[in-house]
Amino acid sequence: MTLNVGVIGVGMIGQDHIRRLTHVLSGARVVAVTDVDVERAKSVAGSLPEARAHETGQDLIHDDAVDAVVVCSWGPTHEEYVLACIEAGKQVFCEKPLATTEEACERILDAEVAAGRRLVMVGFMRRYDPGYRAMKDALRRGDIGAPLLMYSSHRNPAVPPSVTSEGIVTDTCVHDIDISRWLLDSEVVGAQLLKPRRTSLAAEQLQDPLVLLLEMSSGALVNGEASVNCAYGYDIRGEILGETGTVELAETNSVVIKREGHYGGRVPSDWRERFIRAYDDEFQEWIDAVTAGTSTGPSSWDGYAATVVSNAGLKALHDGGRVEVSMRAQPDLYKTAPSGPAPTGTD
Amino acid sequence: MTLNVGVIGVGMIGQDHIRRLTHVLSGARVVAVTDVDVERAKSVAGSLPEARAHETGQDLIHDDAVDAVVVCSWGPTHEEYVLACIEAGKQVFCEKPLATTEEACERILDAEVAAGRRLVMVGFMRRYDPGYRAMKDALRRGDIGAPLLMYSSHRNPAVPPSVTSEGIVTDTCVHDIDISRWLLDSEVVGAQLLKPRRTSLAAEQLQDPLVLLLEMSSGALVNGEASVNCAYGYDIRGEILGETGTVELAETNSVVIKREGHYGGRVPSDWRERFIRAYDDEFQEWIDAVTAGTSTGPSSWDGYAATVVSNAGLKALHDGGRVEVSMRAQPDLYKTAPSGPAPTGTD
Amino acid sequence: MTLNVGVIGVGMIGQDHIRRLTHVLSGARVVAVTDVDVERAKSVAGSLPEARAHETGQDLIHDDAVDAVVVCSWGPTHEEYVLACIEAGKQVFCEKPLATTEEACERILDAEVAAGRRLVMVGFMRRYDPGYRAMKDALRRGDIGAPLLMYSSHRNPAVPPSVTSEGIVTDTCVHDIDISRWLLDSEVVGAQLLKPRRTSLAAEQLQDPLVLLLEMSSGALVNGEASVNCAYGYDIRGEILGETGTVELAETNSVVIKREGHYGGRVPSDWRERFIRAYDDEFQEWIDAVTAGTSTGPSSWDGYAATVVSNAGLKALHDGGRVEVSMRAQPDLYKTAPSGPAPTGTD
Amino acid sequence: MTLNVGVIGVGMIGQDHIRRLTHVLSGARVVAVTDVDVERAKSVAGSLPEARAHETGQDLIHDDAVDAVVVCSWGPTHEEYVLACIEAGKQVFCEKPLATTEEACERILDAEVAAGRRLVMVGFMRRYDPGYRAMKDALRRGDIGAPLLMYSSHRNPAVPPSVTSEGIVTDTCVHDIDISRWLLDSEVVGAQLLKPRRTSLAAEQLQDPLVLLLEMSSGALVNGEASVNCAYGYDIRGEILGETGTVELAETNSVVIKREGHYGGRVPSDWRERFIRAYDDEFQEWIDAVTAGTSTGPSSWDGYAATVVSNAGLKALHDGGRVEVSMRAQPDLYKTAPSGPAPTGTD
Repeated sequence: MTLNVGVIGVGMIGQDHIRRLTHVLSGARVVAVTDVDVERAKSVAGSLPEARAHETGQDLIHDDAVDAVVVCSWGPTHEEYVLACIEAGKQVFCEKPLATTEEACERILDAEVAAGRRLVMVGFMRRYDPGYRAMKDALRRGDIGAPLLMYSSHRNPAVPPSVTSEGIVTDTCVHDIDISRWLLDSEVVGAQLLKPRRTSLAAEQLQDPLVLLLEMSSGALVNGEASVNCAYGYDIRGEILGETGTVELAETNSVVIKREGHYGGRVPSDWRERFIRAYDDEFQEWIDAVTAGTSTGPSSWDGYAATVVSNAGLKALHDGGRVEVSMRAQPDLYKTAPSGPAPTGTD
Repeated sequence: MTLNVGVIGVGMIGQDHIRRLTHVLSGARVVAVTDVDVERAKSVAGSLPEARAHETGQDLIHDDAVDAVVVCSWGPTHEEYVLACIEAGKQVFCEKPLATTEEACERILDAEVAAGRRLVMVGFMRRYDPGYRAMKDALRRGDIGAPLLMYSSHRNPAVPPSVTSEGIVTDTCVHDIDISRWLLDSEVVGAQLLKPRRTSLAAEQLQDPLVLLLEMSSGALVNGEASVNCAYGYDIRGEILGETGTVELAETNSVVIKREGHYGGRVPSDWRERFIRAYDDEFQEWIDAVTAGTSTGPSSWDGYAATVVSNAGLKALHDGGRVEVSMRAQPDLYKTAPSGPAPTGTD
Repeated sequence: MTLNVGVIGVGMIGQDHIRRLTHVLSGARVVAVTDVDVERAKSVAGSLPEARAHETGQDLIHDDAVDAVVVCSWGPTHEEYVLACIEAGKQVFCEKPLATTEEACERILDAEVAAGRRLVMVGFMRRYDPGYRAMKDALRRGDIGAPLLMYSSHRNPAVPPSVTSEGIVTDTCVHDIDISRWLLDSEVVGAQLLKPRRTSLAAEQLQDPLVLLLEMSSGALVNGEASVNCAYGYDIRGEILGETGTVELAETNSVVIKREGHYGGRVPSDWRERFIRAYDDEFQEWIDAVTAGTSTGPSSWDGYAATVVSNAGLKALHDGGRVEVSMRAQPDLYKTAPSGPAPTGTD
Repeated sequence: MTLNVGVIGVGMIGQDHIRRLTHVLSGARVVAVTDVDVERAKSVAGSLPEARAHETGQDLIHDDAVDAVVVCSWGPTHEEYVLACIEAGKQVFCEKPLATTEEACERILDAEVAAGRRLVMVGFMRRYDPGYRAMKDALRRGDIGAPLLMYSSHRNPAVPPSVTSEGIVTDTCVHDIDISRWLLDSEVVGAQLLKPRRTSLAAEQLQDPLVLLLEMSSGALVNGEASVNCAYGYDIRGEILGETGTVELAETNSVVIKREGHYGGRVPSDWRERFIRAYDDEFQEWIDAVTAGTSTGPSSWDGYAATVVSNAGLKALHDGGRVEVSMRAQPDLYKTAPSGPAPTGTD
């Protein structure tokens, strides 16, 4: 059986997902698209063998030919589309953020709980990265004992001048927030934001790098860093120090070259190179789950938690000092639901 | 458009390819299977949504519902099926070896040349491994100058007692032979086989490890090694020393763990773990090419050359000393045809 | 010319330095020792070819046969001996701390400034470690641009039950404090201490691990960590993120072993294994300088600064929150004096 | 007690050893020097606090003020000086080669056996390198089982035009020959020399790179390589594959730098950078042994074996094919004598 997918928002990330669904992965095809730019939607639809363009996201969601929906539109529109999918009883894959405000996330939680089953997966693709999965496996096996301290550095070579300090927190650090929650199996209870010396390569008024400290309910401390003009490459670093050992992400290069007095390998140039497998694996798992009649992966709860903690990060950015983080009680629906891929089974 | 594939031979590797075509890759489905064990073929067909079981490979090849054929049967049967596919004008993906004798390979070359277009791809999947592709890219970019010396070690943790010294040459070293030809862009003109101290972990009379030296037409020397009872893991090592630098395969682990006074990472446990991406990428490229009406990847010529050199390795194993390797003139068809994936474009 | 050295304090570290001066390094010999345990001093003197035992440190300092003094006694006694050496005009190598209180350090600064020349070197041996020296070289060459953020983790496999949280700050973190000042060429202006989840392997009431954040006058932030019961080995990690690149300490193992499905190398078992070359190089440089009539290496000012910052760390440990760090104006004597080894000249 | 050393030959290596004995190591001083260039000898003596210049090596050897002798003169003179030292009953450290002909080496063996005790140490300093010592430790501990296959690559960035193919065998490969014998604890019984494509960076008629295959009496095979114009750095690679695992030399850089899309570390620029510790440790062990009245390290037998195998390499270079290697029976004196440093005791 082939899953018929509708895609809302066909900008860069939307088109990349369409490529993935059409040319890379098994078991799905894109049958409908829409975009705020209707001409762009028509153009994209025209390049696909079996897709039609809709005027609105609502039309697409209610198209009977659409089995499941992928939301890649602008963040502030996510709430509306996700809620419509839940109401229509259709599985939805929503790119991060789930929604931009805590209240919007709560409305989605309420709707999904009322529906009585998981219908939403949020695109925190790092959980599908082989490196993070291997870290999770090491924790599950007890290789390093209880986690005490985590380092998580997110480094981009450069960002457009439009990026703001707030955007670093909500768009960049949000990945560190989600992966910390998943790896440490613990919620954030406090946050603090530190401002090291600014790099001269950053646009004025941008706090880059910044350090985001997260206190987890387990007591573990996350030492997060975002450096979005680090110049040297796209570098995702991670380490978890446990009671009896430590696990860290390895370099990702596949060959080592020696020349001119040095040896070494590539640092990835961007997130596409670094996380291409994670995107593929994330989507294939979603297709397989939806085809089997269920959802999978990061849930609305995970999207809600990320938004709550990001907002605490924003408060810490502006006010300084420690910010307390509190969340509503977790609905039972999310306690039993899976929140990431299964162990790899290697080792 | 979905490519309808028939699979001849549904043993371990055949079933793995069926899984790949059905659940992993885009654009193909298995519509027919056959096997020397007819009941097994029926059982596999029954587990697939749209496949039927044929009594013979010939029946499958001539089934109009079959667009293209995958040959995973026992080596000595390859010639017959590949020739039948060529005759039927159907694209065929043939697992290595192309055929077990030089003469059989030549008959395939003759038939394909007579057909006037490439119809055969041989399953030398290492050419699709990210590590070897990065080595090839480094050579193409001139990072290390002209290649002079290559090391290629192929280590398996253990093999069944049925494996013979001859089998190490024809089934294990054949990968080193093919990847050397591809990376060095040069043919083998001489071979020598050395017999180091035998490991006590090998079955009696098995020459393990063995060293296979290949002289290339460019003058480069390949220092190949096969150790099929190395105990410690599945470890594929490779290095090319060029005039101005050297490039070697990196370790493949994605995390580093420190515990109990040591740091380190996994060595893969088997070829599935090590080369899973290469198998996926190889097949996806074949599906895409065949759907577009062409072939791709390692050609009949590559299959022929591998068989000729393997046979020289067998002679060197039995007779000692250096064995001259000579091949027929390369038909034009293979001079212009692509013989592996395109450069990765990274760096 | 051979330098005649007197050693005050012949416990573990004192005896190790005597071994170094006698059997490893060039140009010095131990001619006098003393210890609070007079019998131990006599026993050590008896094992040396040319040394006599003194009743007190003051006697040793005033022994005409003694050219220069090494102070390895209990921390609270350092002030007295260092001041006596300055008064006697003899070069003194003082193990850290220079003195235990800010006031005592200031009295030493005053005395040395009054003497008009450097007479004191403090034993911050990390500045002589090949790894830290290579980091310093990279900064000097401009390889990574201006430093913005530094990570410095100090991990011991275990500590005796007598170690306190305060001791972690003054004895362990003090190394991170000194090496940060040296590498970043900047003073500490603020400190904060964070308390992650305690490891169950630590003695009760010990805050282990702890995170010590240092704000430097350049704006750079130091993210220091001390984990003194990390179980897995003695592991000194360091990274400096600069504006255009990053530099980090490499692993120190000299071979990689693959066995049982893993590859990897040793983590050192203790500080002796990790820093033996740094101790040797530090002492040889001191012997050479003193023989040439000068001092070298970490100065009284460095000892003073380390004590001031350690004390701020203690305040942060007890009070929570950020602690302002301020120091007296730096005397000219220390502005022109060398404070560490010269660049390695490699690269 | 200070060991009074006389140095014969004060060219580059002789002066480096004088620096080592004078400024780095403990327990020795240079009291006499001589050189074929008498003025140079006088100049070097004048720069030392306590040394006199002799007209001839024989004069130096018979100077009563000289306790022990270091021979750094031109290879063909070694035999004369070593024999004179043995006759005079003085310990001698002889740089490689022990002597340039098999017959000369045998005369030294005969003289030393007649003297009834070891008086000669040969300067195969690789046995003191931390990497090779760690390999030896791994073998001693049984970490990788019985050794089967060894790779040993010796790469220089460039050599002067005066270097010949014969010189590569006798001066470069000789290190691989010695370290193979020591690590594998086995003698060479056969040799073969292969000639890969020549690098265009080598002088005409120089066979560079070359591959030297050694068959050991244990059955192990050594796959040696010398590339003396490899351009990219000074790179000593080594790996031993055993029955249950493998051990290889790690990179020697102490920091990793990331910049401009790459990460990596230094490749040493020359043998001084790579092996400085090995030279220091080798000499300190010799000083300590001689002061204690004994010899240590690589013996005359090791010097003899290296010369015999080098000569077999030369024959293989000229004649092609496999060359049988045979040696005289090993005198008892060398069976019980130590031939390298003790285990490190780490791990």
